[in-house]
Amino acid sequence: MAYWNVDKVPYVGTSDLKSGLGFHYYQPDKVVAGKKMRDWLRFSVAYWHTFDQRLVDPFGDGTAQRPYDKYTDPMDQALAKVDAAFEFYDKLGVDFLCFHDRDLAPEGNTLRETNKNLDKVVDKIVEYQKTSGMKVLWNTSNLFTNPRFVEGAGTSPYADIFAYSAAQLKHSLEIGKRVGSENYVFWGGREGYESLWNTDMKKEQEHAAKFFHMAKDYANEIGFDAQMLLEPKPKEPTTHQYDTDAATTIAFMKEYGLDKDFKLNLEGNHANLAGHTYQHEIKTAVDAGLLGSLDANQGDKLIGWDIDEYPSNLYETTAAMYEVLLNGGIGPRGGLNFDAKPRRSSFEPNDLFYGHIVGMDSFAAGLLVADRMYQDKVLENLKAERYSSYKSGIGAEIESGKADFKSLEAYAIDKPQSELIAATHSDHLEQVKDTINHYIVDTLGK
Amino acid sequence: MAYWNVDKVPYVGTSDLKSGLGFHYYQPDKVVAGKKMRDWLRFSVAYWHTFDQRLVDPFGDGTAQRPYDKYTDPMDQALAKVDAAFEFYDKLGVDFLCFHDRDLAPEGNTLRETNKNLDKVVDKIVEYQKTSGMKVLWNTSNLFTNPRFVEGAGTSPYADIFAYSAAQLKHSLEIGKRVGSENYVFWGGREGYESLWNTDMKKEQEHAAKFFHMAKDYANEIGFDAQMLLEPKPKEPTTHQYDTDAATTIAFMKEYGLDKDFKLNLEGNHANLAGHTYQHEIKTAVDAGLLGSLDANQGDKLIGWDIDEYPSNLYETTAAMYEVLLNGGIGPRGGLNFDAKPRRSSFEPNDLFYGHIVGMDSFAAGLLVADRMYQDKVLENLKAERYSSYKSGIGAEIESGKADFKSLEAYAIDKPQSELIAATHSDHLEQVKDTINHYIVDTLGK
Amino acid sequence: MAYWNVDKVPYVGTSDLKSGLGFHYYQPDKVVAGKKMRDWLRFSVAYWHTFDQRLVDPFGDGTAQRPYDKYTDPMDQALAKVDAAFEFYDKLGVDFLCFHDRDLAPEGNTLRETNKNLDKVVDKIVEYQKTSGMKVLWNTSNLFTNPRFVEGAGTSPYADIFAYSAAQLKHSLEIGKRVGSENYVFWGGREGYESLWNTDMKKEQEHAAKFFHMAKDYANEIGFDAQMLLEPKPKEPTTHQYDTDAATTIAFMKEYGLDKDFKLNLEGNHANLAGHTYQHEIKTAVDAGLLGSLDANQGDKLIGWDIDEYPSNLYETTAAMYEVLLNGGIGPRGGLNFDAKPRRSSFEPNDLFYGHIVGMDSFAAGLLVADRMYQDKVLENLKAERYSSYKSGIGAEIESGKADFKSLEAYAIDKPQSELIAATHSDHLEQVKDTINHYIVDTLGK
Amino acid sequence: MAYWNVDKVPYVGTSDLKSGLGFHYYQPDKVVAGKKMRDWLRFSVAYWHTFDQRLVDPFGDGTAQRPYDKYTDPMDQALAKVDAAFEFYDKLGVDFLCFHDRDLAPEGNTLRETNKNLDKVVDKIVEYQKTSGMKVLWNTSNLFTNPRFVEGAGTSPYADIFAYSAAQLKHSLEIGKRVGSENYVFWGGREGYESLWNTDMKKEQEHAAKFFHMAKDYANEIGFDAQMLLEPKPKEPTTHQYDTDAATTIAFMKEYGLDKDFKLNLEGNHANLAGHTYQHEIKTAVDAGLLGSLDANQGDKLIGWDIDEYPSNLYETTAAMYEVLLNGGIGPRGGLNFDAKPRRSSFEPNDLFYGHIVGMDSFAAGLLVADRMYQDKVLENLKAERYSSYKSGIGAEIESGKADFKSLEAYAIDKPQSELIAATHSDHLEQVKDTINHYIVDTLGK
Ligand SMILES: [Co+2]
Ligand SMILES: [Co+2]
Ligand SMILES: [Co+2]
Ligand SMILES: [Co+2]
Ligand SMILES: [Co+2]
Ligand SMILES: [Co+2]
Ligand SMILES: [Co+2]
Ligand SMILES: [Co+2]
Repeated sequence: MAYWNVDKVPYVGTSDLKSGLGFHYYQPDKVVAGKKMRDWLRFSVAYWHTFDQRLVDPFGDGTAQRPYDKYTDPMDQALAKVDAAFEFYDKLGVDFLCFHDRDLAPEGNTLRETNKNLDKVVDKIVEYQKTSGMKVLWNTSNLFTNPRFVEGAGTSPYADIFAYSAAQLKHSLEIGKRVGSENYVFWGGREGYESLWNTDMKKEQEHAAKFFHMAKDYANEIGFDAQMLLEPKPKEPTTHQYDTDAATTIAFMKEYGLDKDFKLNLEGNHANLAGHTYQHEIKTAVDAGLLGSLDANQGDKLIGWDIDEYPSNLYETTAAMYEVLLNGGIGPRGGLNFDAKPRRSSFEPNDLFYGHIVGMDSFAAGLLVADRMYQDKVLENLKAERYSSYKSGIGAEIESGKADFKSLEAYAIDKPQSELIAATHSDHLEQVKDTINHYIVDTLGK
Repeated sequence: MAYWNVDKVPYVGTSDLKSGLGFHYYQPDKVVAGKKMRDWLRFSVAYWHTFDQRLVDPFGDGTAQRPYDKYTDPMDQALAKVDAAFEFYDKLGVDFLCFHDRDLAPEGNTLRETNKNLDKVVDKIVEYQKTSGMKVLWNTSNLFTNPRFVEGAGTSPYADIFAYSAAQLKHSLEIGKRVGSENYVFWGGREGYESLWNTDMKKEQEHAAKFFHMAKDYANEIGFDAQMLLEPKPKEPTTHQYDTDAATTIAFMKEYGLDKDFKLNLEGNHANLAGHTYQHEIKTAVDAGLLGSLDANQGDKLIGWDIDEYPSNLYETTAAMYEVLLNGGIGPRGGLNFDAKPRRSSFEPNDLFYGHIVGMDSFAAGLLVADRMYQDKVLENLKAERYSSYKSGIGAEIESGKADFKSLEAYAIDKPQSELIAATHSDHLEQVKDTINHYIVDTLGK
Repeated sequence: MAYWNVDKVPYVGTSDLKSGLGFHYYQPDKVVAGKKMRDWLRFSVAYWHTFDQRLVDPFGDGTAQRPYDKYTDPMDQALAKVDAAFEFYDKLGVDFLCFHDRDLAPEGNTLRETNKNLDKVVDKIVEYQKTSGMKVLWNTSNLFTNPRFVEGAGTSPYADIFAYSAAQLKHSLEIGKRVGSENYVFWGGREGYESLWNTDMKKEQEHAAKFFHMAKDYANEIGFDAQMLLEPKPKEPTTHQYDTDAATTIAFMKEYGLDKDFKLNLEGNHANLAGHTYQHEIKTAVDAGLLGSLDANQGDKLIGWDIDEYPSNLYETTAAMYEVLLNGGIGPRGGLNFDAKPRRSSFEPNDLFYGHIVGMDSFAAGLLVADRMYQDKVLENLKAERYSSYKSGIGAEIESGKADFKSLEAYAIDKPQSELIAATHSDHLEQVKDTINHYIVDTLGK
Repeated sequence: MAYWNVDKVPYVGTSDLKSGLGFHYYQPDKVVAGKKMRDWLRFSVAYWHTFDQRLVDPFGDGTAQRPYDKYTDPMDQALAKVDAAFEFYDKLGVDFLCFHDRDLAPEGNTLRETNKNLDKVVDKIVEYQKTSGMKVLWNTSNLFTNPRFVEGAGTSPYADIFAYSAAQLKHSLEIGKRVGSENYVFWGGREGYESLWNTDMKKEQEHAAKFFHMAKDYANEIGFDAQMLLEPKPKEPTTHQYDTDAATTIAFMKEYGLDKDFKLNLEGNHANLAGHTYQHEIKTAVDAGLLGSLDANQGDKLIGWDIDEYPSNLYETTAAMYEVLLNGGIGPRGGLNFDAKPRRSSFEPNDLFYGHIVGMDSFAAGLLVADRMYQDKVLENLKAERYSSYKSGIGAEIESGKADFKSLEAYAIDKPQSELIAATHSDHLEQVKDTINHYIVDTLGK
């Protein structure tokens, strides 16, 4: 039975300007920079936003129209949703999916009952994996929606909630092993505070670290070797979340000895909410050797909350893929997971296809542009030139550690201002931005 | 004598991806949508940012290197700058300039002395206009830099400052007439408050209105028929400026009977600082019939102050030019004035060319894309369809004024929820954004 | 039967520093500035946030524990909630309530069925009003939650939705008349756009104006003489809402001839989201003669969405009440409606009392401080002095309209810079802020 | 000779509500929580904002009127300024000052000449220290104003600039030793990037670390044992500064082995620009054992740039001093340095006194309130209760490390939802905020 009233989305090229159900840039088996597009990009569909999200907002009930809405029994709907999901993956042409435990099946009154519901759905997913070849980029556990997590999960002030969270996560790791997840993600939506006046921030962070260590220990114990990932976000839902941005999360990982086993899952919209560009967050992780995977979405920088738009901004996808190219890939096992949802006014089933198509095409386009810029070395040459004074003379002495304040004073103390100014150079930033425009337009417009 | 070590900037087309001293898109005499590019765009160079701006910031002295820096006497430098400016206009290939009174010449101890300095420079500009054909898009008066304006000019709590401001502006209007300014702009950088606790906001706004009326009266008296324009900006330098954004300024104009004689000059960066897109501000003015002219620049939405970057974002230039196309032009006498400056790290003379080139090319590109979208009616058809229910039946009764709450209740009271939901339609916004990507890339990349 | 496990909240004075179930400042019958506190403040409890709000957020299910949760049938619960509400009003000691139509009773499949449910609950409210003396500060219609309003109500692109909205509102006006609402509020949460690319902003605003005119016409027809109010908010849920802030909404009202019949309902958190202080929005409305009523809450300026906190910041309540004092009252029929909700982590029933107590006490305190500052004329004298140069000489000529640019030039043209600087004066803003601290602390701390 | 037309600022108590030249709360020798106020607060006057700042802004020339403006020769003025400064310290009654090298004396053409100018002024300062007992809280080097630092100092792409910066800093350390600075601060206003496209972020951070290590080595070599401090700020002047906020800077310090020798200097306005409260930044540093010193100022959270207001918000000073009390002091050698300036409209000499008075009184008041809250243990008891479930049972097993995912699953797997919800408790946040109001008002208002 067909849930989705569309054919398999074909590559159609760039002849028709109006977007439809076809890719303009994404050709999974096309080789770019030595790898197939599908292997650079490793696109994943997020279960929560694609199949569960009802398109509610704080002032509105859900508008989503979904082909499995007719099922009223929660388990019936959950099982039908699996059929719909795998048909969707196939028609869209992606290789990966991601899910929270709670995306798949309804909760029971106890965790035991909840796990039972969940296992039934996972059984069906495992069956589908055998025939479809679909892989799980990562799975995760929803430790934020239920009222029991109101003040945190691993950072809850209440030991029973810590215990429950651990128990819930245990089963989520077991499921990760069953479905062969390549990564395992933690997003701490409740791991933060509403007010510092009543919060013991340090104790809560110690608890979080303990929780992560226990999780890794248990994964090791059961032989689940997924790459563990933390996903930063500064605020929303809480006033302050501990995993604020890449740098803050790296500091936390280092402080608590987690940087050997954990890396980062970075999201574009979260970057913006923290006051950063997506490129900045990716570069920060790359420089620390801690880039794990990417949540592919975009924000509206004039909007102060998480909108998780499908990525369409070619400047941002180009910048992201440029950093990925320099890094040789997203991460050891990373991919681009569409943590993205349609606007509330895009409520028809096909909008899920349109959304993913603009997202996949925008990242495929970004890869093509980034590759061409990289091949032409337009920016790499510029940077090499810009820092070239450290290659010889006083610069080399600084680099090698031979220089100290006394030798540098001897070098500089009688240099006139004019000579110092002459040592600096314009970075011609306006020209650089123009060149990037040309690379985008020329690479994609042919 | 050549001040600028460049040739006249040619049109070079799109063959070379790396930007240099040539236009990729801007061809002044190319006809687009029935008019020459130069007539749609009417590019103007801003004297203050281009020739006077030293590239200071609140934490740094000026880095700018300018060819007339060698002149140490202020009047000598001011006169040399005119030569440099007209050589710049010619080499860049623009038709318009804009200036504040204080951009041109140094102040004296009294306004009489100041005016004398100014007149000498204006004499030279007028001479250059005769031979070059350069026109003044608008001139304006700097009523914000000098300490006397610390608490306002037209809204100063001190009557002597109001009087001085009026006197200064009077001469600026006379100069506008001499140089044939097509518009006259007011930006009220000090017309706002630091704190409401010590401010009589209403009185200050009444004074501002009085000031504008006096200005218009005097312009009429001397036969200076420029279009008067107000330029909104929400804050910076003051905590709150009265001309906050387009809508607020329109409200002010209507309240004080200024909307017949004044229109708006809108800037991209100011739009962002007010929480709006540039497109929103332009559309707001167009809908009110009050679009006058445009300050062409862009902000960085993650930065909280006015950076006045040269425009390079093709999404924003396309959106702006689309609204301009729908409006049949920027305004009766509007143009695109580059209220833009290089970054502090782009301090060489040629960066002024690179900056204007990326700006002019980005707007020329935006015009080309907007024209193609407009010709294909891709968005206009979508909108027509979206609102089509108002063409007949109950919609037509609403439009015509025949409907009232009672007739509408009779129509709606027994409609089931399913029928109401069926009356709404997805706006397929993700598809629309993808289509815009295609138009940009395909139009420019050929 | 008692729903709330508390006694009537008494005035306890300031002896106990730890807050409990008692007022420290609010004494309803105490006379301040010639009126009883209850008549200056006219506190109102908002049905939606107090009785209906489940304390959900975009990432979490409701945590609220409410005494009527045991009722599973929606109508049973709706009727029990009325009992609980009136017990709450009585125990808290407020005189007013506010509600949306949809707060009171569940929807049916058609508006006729919905109205039937609603009428039953309103019958019960009317009965309670007779015995309790409770008044309705305002009622309103929820035209934003149901999916049918996904793209607007009065601004929906779909005529059937406009019609339905009108029909729904018609009954809401009829109810307003039954319960004797002193005001009627419109908040346009869906009256805006997601994207300008597919929106006819002008047509939508014309439809909104038509909608408001029809509403006023029908209110007149049935003899419902409530003051009509528009409530501004810049964004959230939509990307841009037409009633952005006070100034924008005033512009809209004037453009469409609504300023005679409509005024403004202003909210603190909405002010912040628009980049303004609450005081600024209130003053803007006062200056235009359009202050109608106030939604009493506060935002967290580091958070980009509407949190609707109970007001507790004494600086903000003092500023708000100062402007109210200057205006002689909130508005012809205005009050302070707590459009405020507990944090998700304040989920017990009593937290509703604690929240209202901090809100009421903070505004009562603000009134006391404002009154003392006003009596001492500390700011009024400062302002009088600051603008005194307009009382005589050239200032008086400016005020009277006798001055023009020529007379002002004659006055100013030979004034030296030193004289102009001497005409300006420091505003000693740091001293003013210190003085406000002293008034707050001294007035309240005795 | 008297530069300042005021007497020594006395303690006047709280009888006069209007602020004048007297302290309402600050009594240097009053003992609070076991220490004198002066020893808790260690107030410092910042040379740059107090004596050098002309009150310019990006759109305005300086308005400041200062008693040493009559000196036109830069060295004469510099020396007169020292007299004025020490008279100011004495009249205000502070024990500490802070300065940049460039605050004190003008630059020459070479560093040698610059140092000579500087040394002359330092000689005079050292003389004054002997008679006045004034101490230097910290000194620092201005490595951001001069155009040579346009693209960084320690992170400049140009080795000559790195060398010059080192040489300049060397002398600044020597001066620190001469004046006995208790701390030495680094603020990296240019140590960041304009664009990632042309920046090697990792190399620049490595250079910065090298620079800091060299500085510490040289300080050790000359026996200058000041506590080294880094001051975070997220952006402005550059698009991104590496020392973004406390957490990011801690991460950097740990990555490069600087956390043993360096701590943090934290500023209120910088906290806000990074999206944090001041309290959050202080707590973050305290928890890491890295709080060094505090820059006492405040921002306006609706304004997107650094305004460095004198602190007056009693909520913020109370929160800051509460964290300081819990920490047993600001830091080993920390103090409260007023990195604060008057508004541009507060331009008279006496405004410098008013500004410091409101700042000192607001922090003294914050100390009094914090002490009382701390003595009453109102928040500490609340927190102890909130986390009490970790004291025994499963919580104790989690704390001790005995628990793992398997034991926690066994504990939690059959707990029904109702029991889990019962394990969570309301945090009554509204009540807490009300209580804080009462402590502020009651403590200060008596
Ligand atoms: Co994500
Ligand atoms: Co997100
Ligand atoms: Co402008
Ligand atoms: Co600007
Ligand atoms: Co409201
Ligand atoms: Co609100
Ligand atoms: Co500072
Ligand atoms: Co600062």
